[in-house]
Amino acid sequence: MIPDQDFAPHLNTTLHEPLENLEKHLLSKQSKIECWLRNQWQNIQIPFYASVDLRNAGFKLAPIDTNLFPAGFNNLNPTTLPLCVQAVQSAIERLNETAYKILIIAENHTRNLYYLKSLATLRDILQQSGYQVRIGSLLPDLHEPLTLDLPSTQLVLEPLIKKNSCVSVEGFVPCIILLNNDLSLGHPSIFENIEQTIIPPLQSGWATRLKSNHFTHYHQVAQEFAEQIDIDSWLIDPLFRNCGELNFMKNEGYECLADNVDAILNNIQRKYNDYNVPYKPFVIIKADAGSYGMGVMTVHSADEIQALNRKQRTRMSKTKEGKSINKVILQEGIYTFETWGKDNAVAEPVIYMIDHFVVGGFYRVHTKRGINENLNAPGMQFEPLACINSCITPDNRQAPDAYPNRFYAYGVIARLALLAAAREINSVISY
Amino acid sequence: MIPDQDFAPHLNTTLHEPLENLEKHLLSKQSKIECWLRNQWQNIQIPFYASVDLRNAGFKLAPIDTNLFPAGFNNLNPTTLPLCVQAVQSAIERLNETAYKILIIAENHTRNLYYLKSLATLRDILQQSGYQVRIGSLLPDLHEPLTLDLPSTQLVLEPLIKKNSCVSVEGFVPCIILLNNDLSLGHPSIFENIEQTIIPPLQSGWATRLKSNHFTHYHQVAQEFAEQIDIDSWLIDPLFRNCGELNFMKNEGYECLADNVDAILNNIQRKYNDYNVPYKPFVIIKADAGSYGMGVMTVHSADEIQALNRKQRTRMSKTKEGKSINKVILQEGIYTFETWGKDNAVAEPVIYMIDHFVVGGFYRVHTKRGINENLNAPGMQFEPLACINSCITPDNRQAPDAYPNRFYAYGVIARLALLAAAREINSVISY
Repeated sequence: MIPDQDFAPHLNTTLHEPLENLEKHLLSKQSKIECWLRNQWQNIQIPFYASVDLRNAGFKLAPIDTNLFPAGFNNLNPTTLPLCVQAVQSAIERLNETAYKILIIAENHTRNLYYLKSLATLRDILQQSGYQVRIGSLLPDLHEPLTLDLPSTQLVLEPLIKKNSCVSVEGFVPCIILLNNDLSLGHPSIFENIEQTIIPPLQSGWATRLKSNHFTHYHQVAQEFAEQIDIDSWLIDPLFRNCGELNFMKNEGYECLADNVDAILNNIQRKYNDYNVPYKPFVIIKADAGSYGMGVMTVHSADEIQALNRKQRTRMSKTKEGKSINKVILQEGIYTFETWGKDNAVAEPVIYMIDHFVVGGFYRVHTKRGINENLNAPGMQFEPLACINSCITPDNRQAPDAYPNRFYAYGVIARLALLAAAREINSVISY
Repeated sequence: MIPDQDFAPHLNTTLHEPLENLEKHLLSKQSKIECWLRNQWQNIQIPFYASVDLRNAGFKLAPIDTNLFPAGFNNLNPTTLPLCVQAVQSAIERLNETAYKILIIAENHTRNLYYLKSLATLRDILQQSGYQVRIGSLLPDLHEPLTLDLPSTQLVLEPLIKKNSCVSVEGFVPCIILLNNDLSLGHPSIFENIEQTIIPPLQSGWATRLKSNHFTHYHQVAQEFAEQIDIDSWLIDPLFRNCGELNFMKNEGYECLADNVDAILNNIQRKYNDYNVPYKPFVIIKADAGSYGMGVMTVHSADEIQALNRKQRTRMSKTKEGKSINKVILQEGIYTFETWGKDNAVAEPVIYMIDHFVVGGFYRVHTKRGINENLNAPGMQFEPLACINSCITPDNRQAPDAYPNRFYAYGVIARLALLAAAREINSVISY
């Protein structure tokens, strides 16, 4: 099961005893964990899909971001696509047994080849699940279908039509509208008062979501889960804090920010002392409603806040589509001690779920970034997890840190983040 | 996608135009087919699992047997096990959201290594789905747990305990009882009036099932389906007839048998004339409640019935566990023009389903049998379908007879047989 050393993840730390204990715990309590998760999924609307960025520091394994409008389907290992198909069938049957037409609402990209390849893969998964699929676009200037040529396929983006409380594209009235646009700029009015099912619900968009709210729910989930399997919840939960409004361009709100950086660094250091972790604590500051890896920075002390130069401040002032950043989350930085390949490029796992099923994943790899930095940045590459199957088929006969078992741990922690997202969204939607 | 020629299936016939048309039909109407199937699964209890034997004659593709207590899980390609796990999770969640303990009821084999390996794989699939699993046995002389050593694992068969309307094994009261014993000899009284869920229902056992009843339902399903996609249902449906009681040892009931062999051969010949099929029609006679490939023979004319020798009659008089055969089904023989490997061993696909999901399959290969014979016989081998993923992910950009697309056709026809089994069982169980 051990992949070729040139194309395999490595965990480069000698400090992994706490994590091995965690992996051992998760394996030995698998049926209890799965039973607990099954109970959690009852009576709650589960996000249709999600991807979760994890960081594995050897001594700690935790989610750092949960995306409810995943792109990157093209980076999944093709052998896992049948799992995607089966999960889509389960999810949509439960949602609407008679549905047979799905309209995907795409991001407004027309030249981002990475995104367009993902969109084509998502379309193919839905088609292979047995649905008729078309792609609608919110592009303001789109008045007729736009055909985009990709290396091995075509995509057609179509303008939306609203009529009789239904959103459609020409000649195609969908039963289900699947958002693959994170709505950073707000809820488009075309989706107001329509009769069709929209998944995930509009409230999942970054116009309304806050990472701090997500991690508040995650903190609660982690505590409940840790109690079940009798571990310190910190091993799976990044500490975080948030501030009120701030303005990076006007240097406003820095005092609160600096105080919170100090507080969180002290809290991390206390935990590092408890576990004899010899590394330097750091904090990640990111837009509370940011996406696409924009508006993210690493700081090791409160002093760095005051010392931000104009370029750094500019970068922290706007996220996707030019949306201003006026709230941030301060998150415990988690080192990634995973590397990929013989060049030891820094890597972090990204796990994909459809409904409550883990369906695939890949390593996000960056040769130009450090182990304490955001890897979701230009220059990143993706390495599909050939062993992703192992996320759902651990092997009790192998060591807890063998690949199938480590990946099972990834699947569990990713599902905890999914559960947090489900609670987060269910708390704001009206049924 | 084309596998190594030494380890690949081949279709050895020039007469495959009707089948290619069928495969083309299935592909072009995929979303309609999946939608139709989705509607069929509503309001019907779906068998927990099933395996379906198919025969591909080039001009015709049809199921010849549907097993509701599948063994052979050990022959599935390991890469498809995650699909099994996901399907088990879907099926059991829908059945009983709070279940977490499953008791498998095994066949009474203790030395059949093939069966025991399958049982171990089934146990592992259920465990990886997150359930606690133990194995109960109906062996009459079993009074304490029996540990069996397999090459890479152990199996423990435990005696059943009945107490307070519950069946258990020592220290383990299951929420769900999963039958993997086909109950050829009748319903064990221990399962009467118990409160636990039994899947599949007791009525699925060969004590009550008849192949002729199954194929009556299949005939109806095939007609409804054929109407949907506008094909001749004969292309996917084997003709069949059945007789009243007979006794091979006493030569009783042969007249009806011979008449029916004649009638069915004539009907096949008419269809062969319609489609310019140059082959000789044949009929398979098999025990109407038979299993394990026992009590099966090939005849090409009614005369062969009268000419049966004592050895042939003895072989047709008893099926599994010595159960007498007094009813048979006469089924249109379907040539298999599929072969495996460079030795051109005769092969037929076997498709596995859990709930309504196609989860895997293999080729049953026999080097000592002809293209018009039962392959489920001693000496058979199994070749996992590496491309089984393709059963659920056809590729519209490839030719209709490319492997992924041929296998999609297999998955569709297998699911039609599953639907027939669902209707068959639902017509006899009381809710």
